[in-house]
Amino acid sequence: MKRLVVVAALVGALPALADEGMWTYNNFPSAKVKAKYGFEPSQQWLDNVRLSSARLAGGCSASFVSPNGLVMTNHHCARGCIEQLSTAEKDYIANGFSAKTEADELKCPAMEINQLSEIVDVTDQLNKATQGLSGKQYSDTLKAEMSKIEKDCATSDQVRCDVVTLYQGGKYNLYKYRRFQDVRLVFAPEHAIAFFGGDPDNFEFPRYDLDVSFVRVYQDDKPAQIANYFKWSKGGAKDGELTFVSGHPGRTSRGLTVAELEYQRDVVMPKTLVTLAEIRGMITEFQKRGPEQQRISNNMKFGVENGLKAIKGRHEALVDKKFFATKVAAEQELRQKVEANPELKKKYGAAWDEIAKAQEQLKLIRKELNYIEQGQGLSSSLFNIAQRLVRAADELPKENGQRLREYTDAGLPAFKAQLFSTAPIYPELEIARLEFSLTKLREELGPDHPFVKKVLGKESPLGLATRLVNGTQLRDVAVREKLFEGGKKAITSSKDPMIQLAILVDPDGRAIRKNYEENIESVIRKNSELVAKAKFEAYGTNVYPDATFSLRLSYGSVQGYTDNGKKVTPFTQMAGAYERNTGEDPFALPKSWIDSKSKLKLSTPMNFVTTNDIIGGNSGSPMINKDAEIVGLVFDGNIQSLGGDFGFDESVNRTVAVHSDAIIEALAKIYGANRVLEELRPGKQPPVKAKPAG
Amino acid sequence: MKRLVVVAALVGALPALADEGMWTYNNFPSAKVKAKYGFEPSQQWLDNVRLSSARLAGGCSASFVSPNGLVMTNHHCARGCIEQLSTAEKDYIANGFSAKTEADELKCPAMEINQLSEIVDVTDQLNKATQGLSGKQYSDTLKAEMSKIEKDCATSDQVRCDVVTLYQGGKYNLYKYRRFQDVRLVFAPEHAIAFFGGDPDNFEFPRYDLDVSFVRVYQDDKPAQIANYFKWSKGGAKDGELTFVSGHPGRTSRGLTVAELEYQRDVVMPKTLVTLAEIRGMITEFQKRGPEQQRISNNMKFGVENGLKAIKGRHEALVDKKFFATKVAAEQELRQKVEANPELKKKYGAAWDEIAKAQEQLKLIRKELNYIEQGQGLSSSLFNIAQRLVRAADELPKENGQRLREYTDAGLPAFKAQLFSTAPIYPELEIARLEFSLTKLREELGPDHPFVKKVLGKESPLGLATRLVNGTQLRDVAVREKLFEGGKKAITSSKDPMIQLAILVDPDGRAIRKNYEENIESVIRKNSELVAKAKFEAYGTNVYPDATFSLRLSYGSVQGYTDNGKKVTPFTQMAGAYERNTGEDPFALPKSWIDSKSKLKLSTPMNFVTTNDIIGGNSGSPMINKDAEIVGLVFDGNIQSLGGDFGFDESVNRTVAVHSDAIIEALAKIYGANRVLEELRPGKQPPVKAKPAG
Repeated sequence: MKRLVVVAALVGALPALADEGMWTYNNFPSAKVKAKYGFEPSQQWLDNVRLSSARLAGGCSASFVSPNGLVMTNHHCARGCIEQLSTAEKDYIANGFSAKTEADELKCPAMEINQLSEIVDVTDQLNKATQGLSGKQYSDTLKAEMSKIEKDCATSDQVRCDVVTLYQGGKYNLYKYRRFQDVRLVFAPEHAIAFFGGDPDNFEFPRYDLDVSFVRVYQDDKPAQIANYFKWSKGGAKDGELTFVSGHPGRTSRGLTVAELEYQRDVVMPKTLVTLAEIRGMITEFQKRGPEQQRISNNMKFGVENGLKAIKGRHEALVDKKFFATKVAAEQELRQKVEANPELKKKYGAAWDEIAKAQEQLKLIRKELNYIEQGQGLSSSLFNIAQRLVRAADELPKENGQRLREYTDAGLPAFKAQLFSTAPIYPELEIARLEFSLTKLREELGPDHPFVKKVLGKESPLGLATRLVNGTQLRDVAVREKLFEGGKKAITSSKDPMIQLAILVDPDGRAIRKNYEENIESVIRKNSELVAKAKFEAYGTNVYPDATFSLRLSYGSVQGYTDNGKKVTPFTQMAGAYERNTGEDPFALPKSWIDSKSKLKLSTPMNFVTTNDIIGGNSGSPMINKDAEIVGLVFDGNIQSLGGDFGFDESVNRTVAVHSDAIIEALAKIYGANRVLEELRPGKQPPVKAKPAG
Repeated sequence: MKRLVVVAALVGALPALADEGMWTYNNFPSAKVKAKYGFEPSQQWLDNVRLSSARLAGGCSASFVSPNGLVMTNHHCARGCIEQLSTAEKDYIANGFSAKTEADELKCPAMEINQLSEIVDVTDQLNKATQGLSGKQYSDTLKAEMSKIEKDCATSDQVRCDVVTLYQGGKYNLYKYRRFQDVRLVFAPEHAIAFFGGDPDNFEFPRYDLDVSFVRVYQDDKPAQIANYFKWSKGGAKDGELTFVSGHPGRTSRGLTVAELEYQRDVVMPKTLVTLAEIRGMITEFQKRGPEQQRISNNMKFGVENGLKAIKGRHEALVDKKFFATKVAAEQELRQKVEANPELKKKYGAAWDEIAKAQEQLKLIRKELNYIEQGQGLSSSLFNIAQRLVRAADELPKENGQRLREYTDAGLPAFKAQLFSTAPIYPELEIARLEFSLTKLREELGPDHPFVKKVLGKESPLGLATRLVNGTQLRDVAVREKLFEGGKKAITSSKDPMIQLAILVDPDGRAIRKNYEENIESVIRKNSELVAKAKFEAYGTNVYPDATFSLRLSYGSVQGYTDNGKKVTPFTQMAGAYERNTGEDPFALPKSWIDSKSKLKLSTPMNFVTTNDIIGGNSGSPMINKDAEIVGLVFDGNIQSLGGDFGFDESVNRTVAVHSDAIIEALAKIYGANRVLEELRPGKQPPVKAKPAG
């Protein structure tokens, strides 16, 4: 992997006009776009694109594509919902789904969609509140003030408000969303074509995936009316064309200090890779228990494999010595600037070493934090529900500002939606997951650790997992509601074994979390703010912040690239999917595609790549042209883009998208999904009639 | 983990009298031992200990403990044999094994034992042969000369001769062994006590394992008569006592250059960890298919978990920044010495950069080398047999010096013993392993790689694995013998699908191997020789070489240590095993132990630790006192000792051994293994009678 990265946020000196950056909507470099591409997005253009964009609260991006609340996203973003709606008899993952009428649209048990209605800069308010504070005081005050701002903003269940920490604390912005909690499945193709090529092709290009699905947001049991939405382009993306991606990149680490990157490279990533790899081996073999076990664990397997491949790519970027040297050099340059100026030195000079010291502290408590409090030791949906119930009973009676962050008033609607979700929970899979994580708990902390002894006693991980999962009543949503409403009294008198375990371990989890938040996180936060401010003073504020799963806009263009000396052209065609078909999973085309081959225009562009700067979380983002029309649907990055976590290299980093024409061609000629087509392109359907799917 | 390492082989300046070093028998620092412990091993003492020591060719150490060929090693070293002799009905892993008479001793299908009879320095001969050569010429000549030396030495099937590369090529020694290929199982306890604590306790201390087994070497169908063997001590190891370990440490990397260590740290180890972790997850879940599947895969699971934990420990050592800095500093010091002396500079100055360049080259072909030629892509015992047969047909007709190294005349007896081993091969496990490795092959090289297409065609990994394993006849030893004897003609006309696959992939494997050997390995070998010679010139030759799975002697003493501020005493007692018993695997004592508790002297020392410098491969080594009597049996190192791959830290690195008294106590009172006892301590058995086990 070639990696010649210049990180704007760090060094300030951008190579002329690189398509780098996941820009916030309130700091978009329209002039820079104009200089390179001759088009300058206006404020009105930006506002319309922002409001036409959507976020899946679970971790993806999406877009509004009709005035009647139709939302387009990736199949792999909706697959949680598709799997939850499936049964052994009606397997929509395997067979696809197409609602013939509005009444056939099925409610997703756990999907929430957000539309970003407003951004307010609250940096001054927060800085004022925390001025002169450090340690626990700093941390408590910051959180209380954030909770207050969010609560004041969230005036109803229809509104979601998040204070977003940008530039590692250099700025704080309040993001106000319109929330949609009634989301229904409209259309999904078969998994076999949505994820054609499977894990081997994931993060690769050339590619042949129809990774699309459509859902609809409802309000008061009717399709929600949406003022801003994207229209469909004629002919989709062309080679060299200017493209924008509006979506929610989850996390980048371009602004981290060298000490933080080393911790990621040497500790976090190797540990995470090893754990994910072991889960992958376990779940792959679990699937061989039978077809039903395969069905109920497909979603988990996909998540694990996707994460594994992504982290491998990031780790490779960080162990690339030349690349890492650029990060070291950039930090040294900034620190020298700070050292050379007595005023800057006084304000910011100590920040890097403070962060490095905190990282060393974190190393010492990492295992306990991960395994006791952050879920790695008790990985189970049912335990997670029990823990939420137990903590809610303690937290909700407190003042809003005093609560653990995830129990504040502003977050309650989302919290309850998850807690009371009707998504199915499969005991056999729960037992397998819980046994696995209990085994890791014992392995990582050691069999003599007091917490391990407290949890396992004389039981084996399998014995305990089986007893808990088979004994708990928490799969029943009504039981959860009763416990939630009953508060502390209902919790303490519950005989449910999962609740009792959650009560048992709660003090340990709170203690390690308190230690982390007061002695480590607060130091890193405080000093990261200082580093960010030092950067602003050294290089100005015309830079983009690291990704934070908040709405961003990137610009770029359709461009091929060179991979190990081989030229990669930017488009694939539908014909390529047929050439790649072996009939064996994951290279087996579904029957609908085999049957429809003769009807298709096989030269239709299928997937394509652009220079847009994206990262995980951008899946499902609309790819639009300068007229804010859909030209594609982002679903991946190439393997080189994974290093984008730490820096962007325009020569090889590529966004991978489904071409808008492929979506139309498939909906029309393979799936006969005319309702959707008519919404996407009113009155412009091609004349072909096809047999409806599924 | 505290890690204050001074590496003798690198910096020369040893802290006074540290117990560091895995010394060769022809360069043992007897005077140093005398200075610290007051005892100076004589040449006669050394010869006796050397001849009383033994090696399991499969990768462990052992010792002769009676004149009638009785050999002591670890249970985990003999577990391959124990598992191969077991069936679903007679499970010696679960239930243990104790031969009541000589006739009951069962022949191990694939165990070979070696006794080191002679060491000859052949450095001059090899240096002379390769003088002035480089690249392919250097590499070919070196190998041909080694093969010649080995062939001249190996005068019969009873003799094994290996040219051992010491000091990364600074010296070459010919090791001549007496070979024993008829090895029979005499005694093994239950797996539950041999490996009490399982993976969680592996590489940990305090510990409570009876990791012992006894086998016997036979000659002409009678117990072999052995002149040199270890007698049993009275009372075993005492706190502070001088101890020697004579065994076969497998591999250390203390003499590697910084570039080589970086390659290990950043590429090899993370990749290996991830692969092993995934196999672990797979095989753990595979075991849930049923008790028979568990039984046939236990050995594989143990190997994977043991390797995983060991590499984790090594990786942690290399990502320890302070530790790595000592390696960098030591190399810089040596290079400065070389640079400062024009003559040295001319001879050695370029060596480090040449090695670094070769490492960069290796990165580029690593995946193909591992997956096409080194077995990671076609991991299957049956494929391995097919490949050996296919290559033997091509190699054996060649001149001895022209063959691939593993087909030379000197290695043929061992080669044939493995090829025609009657060890069972389980189709279900073979399919699972092969499917897994084919999946990794496709994942790592990509589905479009020509080799992947050639192997898989349109088949899935599972489909191909099933067809090959179910279709091959190679489980039948007679079929293998016929193909071997039929030579090239029999091979090319074979319709066996596994043979056909081995023929298909052979050119690819040979090509990548040739590239590696001629362009990378030869450069590293040649320049490692130069680095080693530079070290000799700078620091003298009174240093020990890296471990190479050849016989070494280390000295030390029984010593506790401090672990994260907590004092760890050097002994555990048998009582501790009962305290630790939960009744649940891996903390479940076997029934024999539960039943015999009242008969035992519970204060008998169970396991203990010493400062001896060891590494993997030393498992099964005798721990002896200055009178060359058995005081313990090495079976592990503590977690800190894993960093010993790169450097020794006497403050925390510890060897873990079974105490000799625990072996006697258990044999007498739990297992009633009186035949063995009478051989170990003729005429000195305790009066207690116990019900025989098994």
